[in-house]
Amino acid sequence: MPKEPKTLDNLFHDSLRDIYFAEKKILTALPKMANAAQNEDLAAAFEKHHRETEGQVQRLERVFALMEESPRGKNCPAILGILEEGKEVMEDYKDSAALDAGLLSAAQTVEHYEISRYGTLIAWANEIGLQEAVPLLEATLSEEKATDEALTQLAEKAINQEAEAA
Amino acid sequence: MPKEPKTLDNLFHDSLRDIYFAEKKILTALPKMANAAQNEDLAAAFEKHHRETEGQVQRLERVFALMEESPRGKNCPAILGILEEGKEVMEDYKDSAALDAGLLSAAQTVEHYEISRYGTLIAWANEIGLQEAVPLLEATLSEEKATDEALTQLAEKAINQEAEAA
Repeated sequence: MPKEPKTLDNLFHDSLRDIYFAEKKILTALPKMANAAQNEDLAAAFEKHHRETEGQVQRLERVFALMEESPRGKNCPAILGILEEGKEVMEDYKDSAALDAGLLSAAQTVEHYEISRYGTLIAWANEIGLQEAVPLLEATLSEEKATDEALTQLAEKAINQEAEAA
Repeated sequence: MPKEPKTLDNLFHDSLRDIYFAEKKILTALPKMANAAQNEDLAAAFEKHHRETEGQVQRLERVFALMEESPRGKNCPAILGILEEGKEVMEDYKDSAALDAGLLSAAQTVEHYEISRYGTLIAWANEIGLQEAVPLLEATLSEEKATDEALTQLAEKAINQEAEAA
C-alpha cells in the first residue's frame, strides 16, 4: 500500500517534536554555560533563561495537548551541532578571557535557531487552523528575542571589552 | 611549556574559519534545494542566494587576506546539523505538497545561523581593531537578512497556503 502523502499538519508536528527535543537539550546545556561563565551578569542571564526555558517546555506540552498527543521529542541534528560548538568553545577557551565572548556567541546562535523555528511554527499553526497554539508559541518567541537582545547588550557593554582587555 | 592563553583575536579567527566552512557547505546545498523546490519562485530564491553566497565566500577570503592568512575552513558542527535537517525534509517530504514549506523553513534556519554569526564577527572585528573587515562582513549580513525577509514573504504569499491546499 502506498504511503499517505505528508501534509503541513505532519510538518508542523515534526517541527514541534524537533523543537521540544531542542528545548530539553538546551535545558541541560544552560546550567553548564552558567557555571563556565566568568562574568556574573552573563551567568545570571543564562540562569534566567534556564528558568524561562522550563516554562517554554511546558508551553510546548500544552501545544501537544491541543493536538491530543503526548509530548515526544524527535532527534534534532541542528541543536546538537549548535550545542557541540558551544562545548568546543568551553573546552578550547577554558581559562581564556575570551571564554565569555565565545559562550555568549554560542548562546546567541541557539536563540537564533529558536527564533527561526518558532516563527515558522506560528505561521504554520495559523495555516492549519491550530489558532489556540499561536499565543503559546508567540509568548516563547518574544522571550527568545528578548534574550537575544539582552545578550547583545551584555556583549556591547562588557563581554567583548573584557575579552580584548586580557 | 604552558599554552599561550587564547584571546579574542583567536576567537575571531576560529569563528571566521567556522563560517567559511559553513558558507562552502551552503554553496553545495543550495542547488540541491533549488532542484527539489516545486514552486518556481522558491527555486529562483535559492538560485539567487546561491550566487550571493559565492560573493560572500569571496568577501571572507578578503577578510583572511586582511589578516595576512590563507583562507581555511574549520569543521562547523552547527551548519552540518542544520543542513542535515534540510536533507531529512527533502527525503521525508518528497512528493508532498508540504515539501516547499519544509525547504523554506530549513533555509531560514540557515539564514538565522549566519545572521547570528556575522553579527558577532562584526562586533569582534571592531573590538580587535580589524575595522577594514567590518564593511565586508556588514555587506554579507545585509544580504542574509534580506534573504530571510524574502523567504518570509514567499512563505506568507504562497508556500504555506500551497502546502495546506494539497
